[in-house]
Amino acid sequence: MSPALTYRDTVAVLDLGAVENRFSPEFLAAVNAHLDTVLADGATGLITTASGKFYSNGLDLEWLGAHGERAPWYVEQVQGLLARVLTLPVPSVAALPGHAFGAGAMLALAHDQRVMRADRGYFCFPEVDIRVPFTPALAALVQAKLSAEAITAAVLTGRRFGGAEAHEYGLVDATAAAGTEVEIATALLAPLGAKDQGTLGSIKSVFYAGAYTALTA
Amino acid sequence: MSPALTYRDTVAVLDLGAVENRFSPEFLAAVNAHLDTVLADGATGLITTASGKFYSNGLDLEWLGAHGERAPWYVEQVQGLLARVLTLPVPSVAALPGHAFGAGAMLALAHDQRVMRADRGYFCFPEVDIRVPFTPALAALVQAKLSAEAITAAVLTGRRFGGAEAHEYGLVDATAAAGTEVEIATALLAPLGAKDQGTLGSIKSVFYAGAYTALTA
Amino acid sequence: MSPALTYRDTVAVLDLGAVENRFSPEFLAAVNAHLDTVLADGATGLITTASGKFYSNGLDLEWLGAHGERAPWYVEQVQGLLARVLTLPVPSVAALPGHAFGAGAMLALAHDQRVMRADRGYFCFPEVDIRVPFTPALAALVQAKLSAEAITAAVLTGRRFGGAEAHEYGLVDATAAAGTEVEIATALLAPLGAKDQGTLGSIKSVFYAGAYTALTA
Repeated sequence: MSPALTYRDTVAVLDLGAVENRFSPEFLAAVNAHLDTVLADGATGLITTASGKFYSNGLDLEWLGAHGERAPWYVEQVQGLLARVLTLPVPSVAALPGHAFGAGAMLALAHDQRVMRADRGYFCFPEVDIRVPFTPALAALVQAKLSAEAITAAVLTGRRFGGAEAHEYGLVDATAAAGTEVEIATALLAPLGAKDQGTLGSIKSVFYAGAYTALTA
Repeated sequence: MSPALTYRDTVAVLDLGAVENRFSPEFLAAVNAHLDTVLADGATGLITTASGKFYSNGLDLEWLGAHGERAPWYVEQVQGLLARVLTLPVPSVAALPGHAFGAGAMLALAHDQRVMRADRGYFCFPEVDIRVPFTPALAALVQAKLSAEAITAAVLTGRRFGGAEAHEYGLVDATAAAGTEVEIATALLAPLGAKDQGTLGSIKSVFYAGAYTALTA
Repeated sequence: MSPALTYRDTVAVLDLGAVENRFSPEFLAAVNAHLDTVLADGATGLITTASGKFYSNGLDLEWLGAHGERAPWYVEQVQGLLARVLTLPVPSVAALPGHAFGAGAMLALAHDQRVMRADRGYFCFPEVDIRVPFTPALAALVQAKLSAEAITAAVLTGRRFGGAEAHEYGLVDATAAAGTEVEIATALLAPLGAKDQGTLGSIKSVFYAGAYTALTA
């Protein structure tokens, strides 16, 4: 299943898929095309979610293993999407129905806010245990969103956080009962009203300038 | 009414005024002159407050509308005052008896600590809703004082925070019952004792070097 | 008493000493030699602690007073140790049985986590009261680990924090009943398992690049 875009009134809901929703080149292209639509439509908010037990497991290591020579291009594509979501000129919420691992967790962090199902799934940076280093750009993204305490607890340990613990450390902003992630995300967006894309995009670009520049270098 | 300086024992109390206390050129000059006095007097602390329902509504948009050609000079004056308060070589507390909006909220943030009346007024960054961008310097000031979570909650949304909510997000450090803002601020300063101006100014300058440099560039 | 290294299973426990454990040149050399051993041994974690009522009182002002001409060399040695602990390629916990002042508090901050005895000792940055400025490098270390609120509360005030208050402000991650500091620290390390030194060292180096570079400049 490919990422699919629907609307709840004027809020765009992007379902990343029903499987692991790893960042294959096709996945990245489909998400970018949907973001083009969201901006062109003048959506008042974006919710990304998923329909299975994974929000996203991050990098498509299988594809990467088969296309090692394209690794630099691939990293550029992934970091480009993270930079785009980080500075997206509409309010954004990631609604996690389950696991968010590695680059999948970073995609969630790139949103303005995160809601996580309380009873299923882990928020996890497994890099330290699977021997994958962080690029300075990915570290800058994480540091733009998390406290030093959360970084120590999550990034340096590889620990898996369930919803309640993820909330306690500020990895997510709210938890949700099973099946209500998108509802809770919608409730977070409702009071914000419609924002001017130019102004909100400019403000995010200024506040996240360091991470954006690193991600798009 | 112009800003007026009085003392509570050795603590200077600067009343910004009884109206909206916007940053007109005269207001900025008066505040700077009072800060000169505070430093020359060897005050052991500074409390800024106000006598009406506004701490400050920030930029003087009326003056700015009438003097568009002086906008660069005006921004330099405003940012200069914020930089000065940020690195003021005496302990400082903003005691908010009511609204702090936009640059008024930033002036409060530039102090070491903030106390806000619990039952009246809002702490708010309205920029995203009134289509005003942040300069990198103002963003640096906000980032020097607030968590990423607070920035998302306040700056990206334009949301109005009452005292209790402002406290919950760390926008202010304490709340106060009506009319007790200055008392609470005084109680925060009392245990600090007298600090050496040279040392405290140096420490603030080192810790806030990024924001200070941006504000005074 | 010199710093002494023992093991609890595969976790290295470095006892800094039974007195004030100030950073004399001999102390710094002994700690560095023990860290060499810890890394060579493939320890799965490092706990630093002390056997008296001080974790460490920081700089050896007496030695420094007698060797003023070597102050630049001495600062380089101290900052070098802090940089090394900050990016140590094994999980690290400082277990404080008592006072951590000034550079002693900074050594504790350089660890991944901190446990402090609840009923004895203070965590304190006395610099503002004893008229000692911060170098930009030491400020960068503190800022890499503490929130803006904690910096204001601790660094700008010189306030002494007992264990519970230190925990409340995030200066330490946990408190411990008397004599259980190392046990609690061990319990924090146990779930982490063994980390690959290359990966963990790389991740810490990327996340703390700013402070590391400043400390080793």
